[in-house]
Amino acid sequence: MPEPIDFYFDFSSPYSYVAANLIDALADRHIRSVTWRPILLGPVFEVSGNRPLNAQPMKGDYMRHDVPRLCRRHGIPFAWPEPFPIATVAAARAVYALWDQDAEQAIRFAKAVFRAYFANGRNIGETDGVLAVAADEGIDAAALGQAIQDPAIKARTKAAVDHAIKLKVCGAPFFLVDEEPFWGVDRLPLMDEWMARGGW
Amino acid sequence: MPEPIDFYFDFSSPYSYVAANLIDALADRHIRSVTWRPILLGPVFEVSGNRPLNAQPMKGDYMRHDVPRLCRRHGIPFAWPEPFPIATVAAARAVYALWDQDAEQAIRFAKAVFRAYFANGRNIGETDGVLAVAADEGIDAAALGQAIQDPAIKARTKAAVDHAIKLKVCGAPFFLVDEEPFWGVDRLPLMDEWMARGGW
Repeated sequence: MPEPIDFYFDFSSPYSYVAANLIDALADRHIRSVTWRPILLGPVFEVSGNRPLNAQPMKGDYMRHDVPRLCRRHGIPFAWPEPFPIATVAAARAVYALWDQDAEQAIRFAKAVFRAYFANGRNIGETDGVLAVAADEGIDAAALGQAIQDPAIKARTKAAVDHAIKLKVCGAPFFLVDEEPFWGVDRLPLMDEWMARGGW
Repeated sequence: MPEPIDFYFDFSSPYSYVAANLIDALADRHIRSVTWRPILLGPVFEVSGNRPLNAQPMKGDYMRHDVPRLCRRHGIPFAWPEPFPIATVAAARAVYALWDQDAEQAIRFAKAVFRAYFANGRNIGETDGVLAVAADEGIDAAALGQAIQDPAIKARTKAAVDHAIKLKVCGAPFFLVDEEPFWGVDRLPLMDEWMARGGW
């Protein structure tokens, strides 16, 4: 059984949302599972010196054109959320809290959070919004709310982000396949080939 | 006859080099010509607030891994040049100087400049290096050297860069097809589809 694909993403990253919609089909083709690893681009950008695309004069304009075009291409529902971008630490902690109990549930929840924000205009920047999505998915929102506040989950989330930075995860979405890095949703076809051929 | 593909590139951009090796096959499939438009990423970055990938902590590392991997994948000869990056204004002026006389020759020359730098380790950052490539291509190096110094060619090059910025060319390689923008060599497959389907 091949190793899982590590999928690093920020819930506020529209290209991560696109990748979240495409990764399953890709992983299935290679009989791989996907480990969903939410990160926070804020701390990543502190190290990389980068800034959110939205805040960059020309690249922001390109992104605002490109993301809806990409979603139309793949049949992914999309509407620019407001506010954008948002803090995603509560949503990230919720995924890590759910993961150990039930990874499949954590993945379904992560997809629902992405959809709530990028398709349905729901603000998932605050804990309340995150828990509302959880409740819709049949998850115990009260328990999840407590878990989000748990110092152990907070520490785990921070450690996950720090570890991603150590692994040189320089943006989102970012993938590691057998330690080989792929950055950006545009690189999924290359990653597909890499897995098919076992590298080159 | 469909409109040409506008190909914006900087001679110091390794991803532009990769694109320069792939664009002909793509254009041929759609019976389009390619207008080669050298730009200077320095002035672009002044507007966009961006910096060369090489100077960015984590993204620089990724690029140093990714570019050779991409070149191996496509069978493109590649060796990291030294120095890197370099000023490319002389090479850009040379392309604009040649273009009006003989666009095909200008394209052959541009490809030769890219190859000289990214495959053969020749420094094309100075006028001498640019003219040496021209001489190898059977171009009158003395005449080209004069053209590079011609105030009209200098002005034309500056105007081309300014116009690209006005068109929101936010990086390199960058393509415009029937006014539709595509940024990055990873987007060539999407551009391919866009031309095949006439957009979506």
